Amino acid sequence: MSLWKALDGARVLDLAQPMRKGMPQSPNHPPFRMTLERRHGDVVRPGGGSAANEIIVTGGHVGTHVDALAHVSQDGLLHGGRPAAEVMTHEGFGELGIDAFEPYVGRCVLLDVAAVHGVPTLPAGYEVTAGDLERAAAGLELREGDALLIGTGWSRLWPSGPGAGPSGTDFTGARDGAPGPGVEAARWLAARRPRVVGGETIAFEHVPPGRGHATLPVHRIMLVESGVNIVETMRLGELLDSGAREFLLVLNPLPIAGATGAPVRPLAVLG
Amino acid sequence: MSLWKALDGARVLDLAQPMRKGMPQSPNHPPFRMTLERRHGDVVRPGGGSAANEIIVTGGHVGTHVDALAHVSQDGLLHGGRPAAEVMTHEGFGELGIDAFEPYVGRCVLLDVAAVHGVPTLPAGYEVTAGDLERAAAGLELREGDALLIGTGWSRLWPSGPGAGPSGTDFTGARDGAPGPGVEAARWLAARRPRVVGGETIAFEHVPPGRGHATLPVHRIMLVESGVNIVETMRLGELLDSGAREFLLVLNPLPIAGATGAPVRPLAVLG
Amino acid sequence: MSLWKALDGARVLDLAQPMRKGMPQSPNHPPFRMTLERRHGDVVRPGGGSAANEIIVTGGHVGTHVDALAHVSQDGLLHGGRPAAEVMTHEGFGELGIDAFEPYVGRCVLLDVAAVHGVPTLPAGYEVTAGDLERAAAGLELREGDALLIGTGWSRLWPSGPGAGPSGTDFTGARDGAPGPGVEAARWLAARRPRVVGGETIAFEHVPPGRGHATLPVHRIMLVESGVNIVETMRLGELLDSGAREFLLVLNPLPIAGATGAPVRPLAVLG
Amino acid sequence: MSLWKALDGARVLDLAQPMRKGMPQSPNHPPFRMTLERRHGDVVRPGGGSAANEIIVTGGHVGTHVDALAHVSQDGLLHGGRPAAEVMTHEGFGELGIDAFEPYVGRCVLLDVAAVHGVPTLPAGYEVTAGDLERAAAGLELREGDALLIGTGWSRLWPSGPGAGPSGTDFTGARDGAPGPGVEAARWLAARRPRVVGGETIAFEHVPPGRGHATLPVHRIMLVESGVNIVETMRLGELLDSGAREFLLVLNPLPIAGATGAPVRPLAVLG
Repeated sequence: MSLWKALDGARVLDLAQPMRKGMPQSPNHPPFRMTLERRHGDVVRPGGGSAANEIIVTGGHVGTHVDALAHVSQDGLLHGGRPAAEVMTHEGFGELGIDAFEPYVGRCVLLDVAAVHGVPTLPAGYEVTAGDLERAAAGLELREGDALLIGTGWSRLWPSGPGAGPSGTDFTGARDGAPGPGVEAARWLAARRPRVVGGETIAFEHVPPGRGHATLPVHRIMLVESGVNIVETMRLGELLDSGAREFLLVLNPLPIAGATGAPVRPLAVLG
Repeated sequence: MSLWKALDGARVLDLAQPMRKGMPQSPNHPPFRMTLERRHGDVVRPGGGSAANEIIVTGGHVGTHVDALAHVSQDGLLHGGRPAAEVMTHEGFGELGIDAFEPYVGRCVLLDVAAVHGVPTLPAGYEVTAGDLERAAAGLELREGDALLIGTGWSRLWPSGPGAGPSGTDFTGARDGAPGPGVEAARWLAARRPRVVGGETIAFEHVPPGRGHATLPVHRIMLVESGVNIVETMRLGELLDSGAREFLLVLNPLPIAGATGAPVRPLAVLG
Repeated sequence: MSLWKALDGARVLDLAQPMRKGMPQSPNHPPFRMTLERRHGDVVRPGGGSAANEIIVTGGHVGTHVDALAHVSQDGLLHGGRPAAEVMTHEGFGELGIDAFEPYVGRCVLLDVAAVHGVPTLPAGYEVTAGDLERAAAGLELREGDALLIGTGWSRLWPSGPGAGPSGTDFTGARDGAPGPGVEAARWLAARRPRVVGGETIAFEHVPPGRGHATLPVHRIMLVESGVNIVETMRLGELLDSGAREFLLVLNPLPIAGATGAPVRPLAVLG
Repeated sequence: MSLWKALDGARVLDLAQPMRKGMPQSPNHPPFRMTLERRHGDVVRPGGGSAANEIIVTGGHVGTHVDALAHVSQDGLLHGGRPAAEVMTHEGFGELGIDAFEPYVGRCVLLDVAAVHGVPTLPAGYEVTAGDLERAAAGLELREGDALLIGTGWSRLWPSGPGAGPSGTDFTGARDGAPGPGVEAARWLAARRPRVVGGETIAFEHVPPGRGHATLPVHRIMLVESGVNIVETMRLGELLDSGAREFLLVLNPLPIAGATGAPVRPLAVLG
């Protein structure tokens, strides 16, 4: 059967947050900015046609995005014991950059920890534990090479609309923290040997109140120790509500040569 | 059968060109720039961890990208007779922007015009005709709502490697032109009522030598008159070589709110 | 006598705030960002030489800067009743842009309102009145075409050092306001027919607590009604402390073609 | 006598080239881009007021600019034998950056080498020699700490007008070279112990045809060995035509913390 027939009637969910000026993002990264350079009517060609276009300033870890393995090092070493200095140039990473991430089209399991606790959204600063994951995974088969997402419901708090910017402070968790996996949960995930892990917060980490992104142990465990990419700032609300726990995930970050991460518009295809 | 089983063993082809400083692009759009802001070792956290990240300057029509319907107007009107002035603000387009493009996951037909002419790559400045498309479509079923790509082989000329920039002049066709559909071919495509059309050149147009992107009639026909999005600067060489003419296409441009276009990493999934 | 002899022994004060990531600025403008693209050692030429350089993202109203007359319109009209639409293109302003500002090298009078009140810095949200200016101008000659600066001491609050960013919130006055001239004071200034006026805050306005830059009446009076440019975010602390009230001012904003404002490093030369 | 009286009737010449998209610049630096973010009418405040503003992408060595001592290193060392690695961070240079350049207000001598050869503009690829400088300096007193500019007339070739971009290729000298001092002339200059040197070309170097900015020996001599800053891409045509050879120069580059260079609008004040 042809693939497009297999997909006939499938439901496709967009797992990316919209990118706009003022959206929540880490203060460590360049603020997102999109401005129209030309508007309709600015330059009208003979015949009455006109084109509009924009300039975009952003970062590789802004909006929904995938972390490349090159993003984090430990004691100067990248994944596989590769010295960062060996593969890092002023034009980016010759290895382990986001362009080395082979697009993922495959099985994904959603571990809905919010549902485990019977809430739509976990509290700010909640640490997802290995026990949470164990309970969320009950009845689900986890296979090596799968994508594993943690549902916290946090993406429901993403501010909507053009005037959304200033209220985004809470989403980042800078003040009150953000829910995410602790070290124990990260080891639980890594032990399943997934291809990629991810979630809804800006950093796939447990962020305690008032701490910000001070330390990133889960990044170290996943990217450096385990060679598992991370996808962050996903929009999972609709997916969580759908009840789907197994589905097809498409994860194809922009192939920016040598970058440590890149924006992506992940898709869930529900069978 | 679950979808990920249907995809078991499927071959996934990456249809995006890598994005790097100096890559070929239209002079009408902001030059792509990616620079590492932090490198490993710049800021070492207690414990020995370090993160690297970048700043990116780009445009919505830079690299492999999808044109939103809002990209082009004719006599002040967007698709559907919508006055551009009504939906255009300084923060982008409230309608018809790239965030209004529902991600496409569906059937795609590749019309290999290069093969029709028995060449790997059509000559610069060659106008793809309706007759070419007719011959390329022989034996293929074209359905309303499909994606239709034209193969010219032009993407084989994309410069590779970090030092590729300066030689990119020829790829843009500024001097010698670039192969693409003329008005007649565009009408042929529009009559099939596809969801999206696309190709390998920077503009999905026949660009005669020495003319540059002076007029863009195919954009008018597809975007304004027909409401059909365009994907440009695709990397189709490997796909053309594969002989596949029908496949599953995933087309999910970044959801940049109100933008006239956005970069994308399209995937072909071969059954 | 040659000019450089006249300046022999003169004291030159730098009236610009340093530009760095995270410095206080208006949320209406692009966040300042400077990143090294190449560092020493990245590209070493034969012979052992190496060059470092940066990429800069900024705005015309970021850091110490001059407002062009084109910056503000009233009822669609710029200064002199010029319809904004007539001189505004997507590439900037053909008239009244910052490149139309002839560099100023001339007499400047500092009206030290903080000293009038016997304080180093006026309180946040204080409205400078015409009476304040009258008292500050006592004994000083004001001539048509002079530059007139208002001293509030506010620039003493500019955060210093690389980690200064986050604390900048107070400087902008978003929460508690910022001292500056009200409508009455602006009319007093305009009546003196100066070439340029300016001060230490981000907007040369009285900003009441909790209001932000909601309305900008002083900008209207100076730029639109009076054709007088404004210089903002100046660093005046050292000048205020010097006791100098008349001096030579050099004001030469970057000649960015068609821009509504541009950064500047103003100099005071004390006789 | 007060300084502003001393300057009464003085002629002020603007020595900066206008900054606009497409202007000539080195391919090593970020392409200049200025785009209006808000135009008049986009956001009209209650009362009828409206403000326009822009986003600017540029580099520290784009347009008329001053090179900081931190710009160039030799064998890993900056001026004074300072290891680059010691003062270089990801946020810029803690020492020897452009913010360490004390604004210059002082005597300047123009060495008009074009006049020595009886031409308005020296030929592309001409190497200015020590003998040329000696002849140009005849009758002029050169003092330690002066600014010394070399007149080649090259700035007369700067393309004018908005559509000037593409023709800028020749100005950079990438193909045919650009006139400037060779090693011998640089040593002659350095021996005069000036505060700053400069000229009209993009690099203050002799650029032979077809070589581009391959090696930069004059930068090494001035910046690294002699601790003398360089100002480049100056607009000297009007000054050359004026016949003035001694004048007051104001050189106040933007104080971008830690940058290797910064744009400037230099002024010549003729007595």
